Amino acid sequence: MTPSTASAPVPSRRAADAVARLDTAQKAALTTGASFWHTADLPAAGLPSVMVTDGPHGLRKQVEGGDHLGLLDGVAATCFPPAVTLASTWDAALVQRVGDAIGAEALAEQVAVVLGPGVNIKRSVRCGRNFEYFSEDPFLAGRLGAAWVRGVQARGVGASLKHFAANNQETDRLRISAEVDERTLHEIYLRAFRHVVTTEQPWTVMCAYNALNGVFAAENRWLLTEVLREEWGFQGLVVSDWGAVHDRAAALAAGLDLEMPGTGGRTAAEVVAAVAAGSLAEGDLDLAAQRVADVVLRAGDTARATAAARPDLDALHETHHELAREAAAAGVVLLTNDGVLPLTAGQGRVAVVGELARTPRYQGAGSSQITPTRLDDALTALTGRLGADAVRFAPGYRLDGDADDALDDDALAAAEGADVVVVFCGLPPQDESEGYDREHIELPDVQTALLERLLAVHDRVVVVLSHGSVVRVSGWAGRAAAVVEGWLGGQGGGEGTARVLLGEVNPSGRLAETVPVRLEDTPDYLDFPGEQRTVRYGEGVFVGYRWYDGRDLPVAFPFGHGLSYTTFGYADATARLVGDVVRVEVDVTNEGDRDGRETVQVYAGLPGSSVRRPVRELCGFAQVDVPAGATVRARVDVPLDELRYWSVGARGWRLEGGTYRFAVGASSRDRRAALDVSVAGDGPVFPLTVDSTVGEWLADPVVGTMARERAVAFGLDPDSPAFEMAKQMPMRGVVGFAPGLVDLAELEEAAAAARAATA
Amino acid sequence: MTPSTASAPVPSRRAADAVARLDTAQKAALTTGASFWHTADLPAAGLPSVMVTDGPHGLRKQVEGGDHLGLLDGVAATCFPPAVTLASTWDAALVQRVGDAIGAEALAEQVAVVLGPGVNIKRSVRCGRNFEYFSEDPFLAGRLGAAWVRGVQARGVGASLKHFAANNQETDRLRISAEVDERTLHEIYLRAFRHVVTTEQPWTVMCAYNALNGVFAAENRWLLTEVLREEWGFQGLVVSDWGAVHDRAAALAAGLDLEMPGTGGRTAAEVVAAVAAGSLAEGDLDLAAQRVADVVLRAGDTARATAAARPDLDALHETHHELAREAAAAGVVLLTNDGVLPLTAGQGRVAVVGELARTPRYQGAGSSQITPTRLDDALTALTGRLGADAVRFAPGYRLDGDADDALDDDALAAAEGADVVVVFCGLPPQDESEGYDREHIELPDVQTALLERLLAVHDRVVVVLSHGSVVRVSGWAGRAAAVVEGWLGGQGGGEGTARVLLGEVNPSGRLAETVPVRLEDTPDYLDFPGEQRTVRYGEGVFVGYRWYDGRDLPVAFPFGHGLSYTTFGYADATARLVGDVVRVEVDVTNEGDRDGRETVQVYAGLPGSSVRRPVRELCGFAQVDVPAGATVRARVDVPLDELRYWSVGARGWRLEGGTYRFAVGASSRDRRAALDVSVAGDGPVFPLTVDSTVGEWLADPVVGTMARERAVAFGLDPDSPAFEMAKQMPMRGVVGFAPGLVDLAELEEAAAAARAATA
Repeated sequence: MTPSTASAPVPSRRAADAVARLDTAQKAALTTGASFWHTADLPAAGLPSVMVTDGPHGLRKQVEGGDHLGLLDGVAATCFPPAVTLASTWDAALVQRVGDAIGAEALAEQVAVVLGPGVNIKRSVRCGRNFEYFSEDPFLAGRLGAAWVRGVQARGVGASLKHFAANNQETDRLRISAEVDERTLHEIYLRAFRHVVTTEQPWTVMCAYNALNGVFAAENRWLLTEVLREEWGFQGLVVSDWGAVHDRAAALAAGLDLEMPGTGGRTAAEVVAAVAAGSLAEGDLDLAAQRVADVVLRAGDTARATAAARPDLDALHETHHELAREAAAAGVVLLTNDGVLPLTAGQGRVAVVGELARTPRYQGAGSSQITPTRLDDALTALTGRLGADAVRFAPGYRLDGDADDALDDDALAAAEGADVVVVFCGLPPQDESEGYDREHIELPDVQTALLERLLAVHDRVVVVLSHGSVVRVSGWAGRAAAVVEGWLGGQGGGEGTARVLLGEVNPSGRLAETVPVRLEDTPDYLDFPGEQRTVRYGEGVFVGYRWYDGRDLPVAFPFGHGLSYTTFGYADATARLVGDVVRVEVDVTNEGDRDGRETVQVYAGLPGSSVRRPVRELCGFAQVDVPAGATVRARVDVPLDELRYWSVGARGWRLEGGTYRFAVGASSRDRRAALDVSVAGDGPVFPLTVDSTVGEWLADPVVGTMARERAVAFGLDPDSPAFEMAKQMPMRGVVGFAPGLVDLAELEEAAAAARAATA
Repeated sequence: MTPSTASAPVPSRRAADAVARLDTAQKAALTTGASFWHTADLPAAGLPSVMVTDGPHGLRKQVEGGDHLGLLDGVAATCFPPAVTLASTWDAALVQRVGDAIGAEALAEQVAVVLGPGVNIKRSVRCGRNFEYFSEDPFLAGRLGAAWVRGVQARGVGASLKHFAANNQETDRLRISAEVDERTLHEIYLRAFRHVVTTEQPWTVMCAYNALNGVFAAENRWLLTEVLREEWGFQGLVVSDWGAVHDRAAALAAGLDLEMPGTGGRTAAEVVAAVAAGSLAEGDLDLAAQRVADVVLRAGDTARATAAARPDLDALHETHHELAREAAAAGVVLLTNDGVLPLTAGQGRVAVVGELARTPRYQGAGSSQITPTRLDDALTALTGRLGADAVRFAPGYRLDGDADDALDDDALAAAEGADVVVVFCGLPPQDESEGYDREHIELPDVQTALLERLLAVHDRVVVVLSHGSVVRVSGWAGRAAAVVEGWLGGQGGGEGTARVLLGEVNPSGRLAETVPVRLEDTPDYLDFPGEQRTVRYGEGVFVGYRWYDGRDLPVAFPFGHGLSYTTFGYADATARLVGDVVRVEVDVTNEGDRDGRETVQVYAGLPGSSVRRPVRELCGFAQVDVPAGATVRARVDVPLDELRYWSVGARGWRLEGGTYRFAVGASSRDRRAALDVSVAGDGPVFPLTVDSTVGEWLADPVVGTMARERAVAFGLDPDSPAFEMAKQMPMRGVVGFAPGLVDLAELEEAAAAARAATA
């Protein structure tokens, strides 16, 4: 986790030149939007207005004359699966291809920056916007977020990494202060951002609405300047979330370059006044203006480079629809399967039950809501393959949650005559949205009731789920013949899910978040969503599987879990230090008769660590395509940097020396091998001083023997239980308590010798 | 929880007069100990040296010429049961009598101040000093701590309320910073201190070793002055824990009056220099010196008042030994009983197994370790009552934990011929001490192994436990015929336990702390004991039963649990508001044929509270002695103050209006009645302003209708799911987002009207 050493200085010389042509008022205008989606138009300085547009799972470019809140009426664009589903692919190459496709549509629509990806951590299962985020794990979120940025930006379109930072709930998000200790911030909530920034240099980073430890993100200099720029070397532009700025001048000074949306000149005037009054340095304004100018100029480069070949949008949409289907299928997670799947044409009658089979839930609500170019549904896809005669559909329940006995009975009737029942369940749109959180994780009562009735009468019930954040399945999952997690599939989700059900695609998706047994087990349960504008992050670094593993709690389905229509054996796992990486390798054998893909996961832990640590943390993974019967050796290189922890004592990243345990397996709880690798660490966090305790002196390799001899000579027994109390005492205190035992000058000298030896 | 309005100003006029006769050096000398246990001797000012001595469950007055750390060789004194056992009596009157007895011994030994009680909360089951603290619940700890102080101080001897504050672990206690949010501090960790200070005005409060949120307690002005004196009205002296001061002048300025132990003049010289340099106000030194003088003068008053009648120490010890036995018996908690208890003489042979029956574990280790005047053991007591012929003893295991098959076999042999087997198990002394924490909560392996063998061969096994902090019993407790929790019984514990086993005392003790199923379930499990000089209090207010209830976790034995040899029925429970208390009453009927004592507990909760709250919190209890077959109406008055929560928004205590639920029962999980009482609350924490959200405006009783009409007129539907996002927006932000909808001046006016109506 070394800071990036990006070579191209940003803002660029040409941006500085452009800004040099602007007066204070123009610079202020440039650093606040001209409208909801556009930057200021300053043609005299060579800075035309550019457009930014919501993402992240497709383009939400607003139609001219849309609603006041800028939320509706987007132009048609490919609606890819949201982040929750993309994350379940664990496939960075695929996510990059999706990013590339979104970049291509942005180019075609003359959009300079797409507002995504969202790499916030799924702290709570109740967060209403979880569908828009990747994972409960920062390593996975960082890798996939980086792939998305790589894809978009390769097209010459900017990304906007968001929401920076600790925006982990919707409740009161415009005012709430996330109270997070520094270690937890660095190891969990900032870590994915750090990876994306240092590896991809997104054009922009979007600050969050919320406050972090009492200071709003928009005005948080520690966050936007000290961490983002000084620690990580971010070279781009920081843009506000829409309406996140409270004090424009303070935000500029803190490192917030571009305020969005426009304020009709109100805040630009405040900036001009602040500069005039001397409360804002003109240099801060210059820098922000240069960063805006830089994005505008880069967008211009792209426009010029691509002007000759304007794409055929219809053709793009056609290609992208197929990509959307592929991504949806790759994101499907097969949770359980007793062999009922895959379905086979000609092998009997299939009851397809559930309104969601016909009326798919395919994306979340809020600013990311795309107007899709097309929309697949699973019912059509299944009927097309299995034949209308073999399929009987019954909606079963109403999406508005109202009970309807006739629908229920009809579904039972359909099930009774079927060889297999495929029930589509999930959350209706109103249950998950940007803007508010859930209060529970239950499926709607009408669906659970239907499911129970079906499970009571049929022993081949396949449950297919559509929703954006986890639901409790522990009540019934064990009784279904198969459970298929489809998440939110985007516009190709219906087809993608059908391909998996039919075995045209062998499922390879893996959970990017734990499915808990019950809400009460979740790490944030007693803190979320906070109170009176404050939310405690009491669970600290123990988020997601780190919590369930740390407390040895059962889960419904563990992080990393996902089945295939074949099975994989692991053998000959090895791990060894190669330079500054730990190289983990394992033979993966496809034990079935169907080609498949295995996601080999590597988790690291340090038994006996001197600091509280998760039992294991994802530190690498590799996907291997293994033909039926074949063996492929998978390799995962884990940079030593991934083993570092944030030291609260040193206030920095530290590599602790010791024997690390690398678990290799198919999920966080299906571990096939444990490999120990010894790693040399950094020096001591607290070098020996006179304020070190007696116990620390006794344990010191240099002065320990001397200290012990002195204690014994004084009539004390350093190994007795009674001496344990004395071990706590700082040596300086001993001077006061036991005069004559030692003197301070002698101690200082001994400590200096000890420090010199370990430095 | 109104601050005390103690009428007598302290320091007193005479203390001020005495200090006025001292020069700066003398004042500095007075505010630092003259030796390990004595204050400075300044006879010219009428301020003789006085002695302070460790408590709290007896007097630990050091013999002259004791060890260097002042830990060993105390004069003989009555060793009462430590706080863990006293707390299990839930009997404030009994605790006060113990305090009184300790005060009497202090007088006889010419000790001015006894260093106790310790009212720190048992945050972690692993804390090595839990035996010295009362409870996981601050209400109970406060009530019992106050009773102890009342008892001691009625004798004219000072108490020292300790360790102030958030000293909840032994690991690195001299350096660790407890990181605790303000609400948790006020509601949990400061609350017992507050009760004792405001009701009893202890002569002294002892600051803790540790730091609180980064500032050492000894130098923590917020803690020692703003909270303790300004908020609570403390009038007494603040003394340091022994060696807790880091910067003497800074500590004085923060409100630390007396540094202990003496530093041979080193820190007095620092104080003189600081005053000379102007970095310490002489007024601060004066005030501290006056407070020390006040304690010295009060001790003189007591000495004069009691000089005429020097007590007969031997007679005192004799009387106090019987009180120690009574307290030990009252602290015994009958956890389970299938009817095997009480034992009856003449009804068969009894195998008494376990070294702890012969060699009792009766107090914890560290500064509180008393040299007892006598020592009972259970084996002698049982043999005396049951007859030597009826009792066969086998030690069964070694206390050092080494396996000894011969002992084990001998115990099995003893058990085989017995009608009932009474096994004494517990923790050996080295497992629990001041100075270090436990790493697990298991009984020693040799004991568990023995227990398993006995349980396998005998169906009438009674387990009697001796230890100072909870152990895991979930492995075997369900298979024992009875489990008797004896805690640490003090010098009369052997006899006290025997009285309960024999039915001479009908047990009435109740758990003052939860016995969890396993260590992994405990609230602090993933944070304790911190790292690198910092410990997070991640669980917040959810300590003890608040955690297990909040997460709906099973426990081995719940807070408040304890059986009797009779049973009690509850009927006709009522609750009503009477002035500023909620009066809860219930009929308690002794349904058996043995007189008994029931502890009626009242827990309060506020379903639907606007802030995160424990499901229920102890807010009152009453002990009723009920003759066999009789009915007694128990009454518990709950002051409304006990229903307040600490508002992070208002930074103060608030009474939330609503319908509170009062649960009345025999334990936190054996609730017999639920009673609802409506309580009017304080005004809104955040009065309506333009920074209130759209949602808050819509919900406001005054301007809500207007806001709704305005939104509808603008073409918006405030009840639609899509509008939920808008509800989060502060109204000020709407002005920017939707110009024309409202203007700021109009909003300000409307908000003022709304505030005026709710003020």
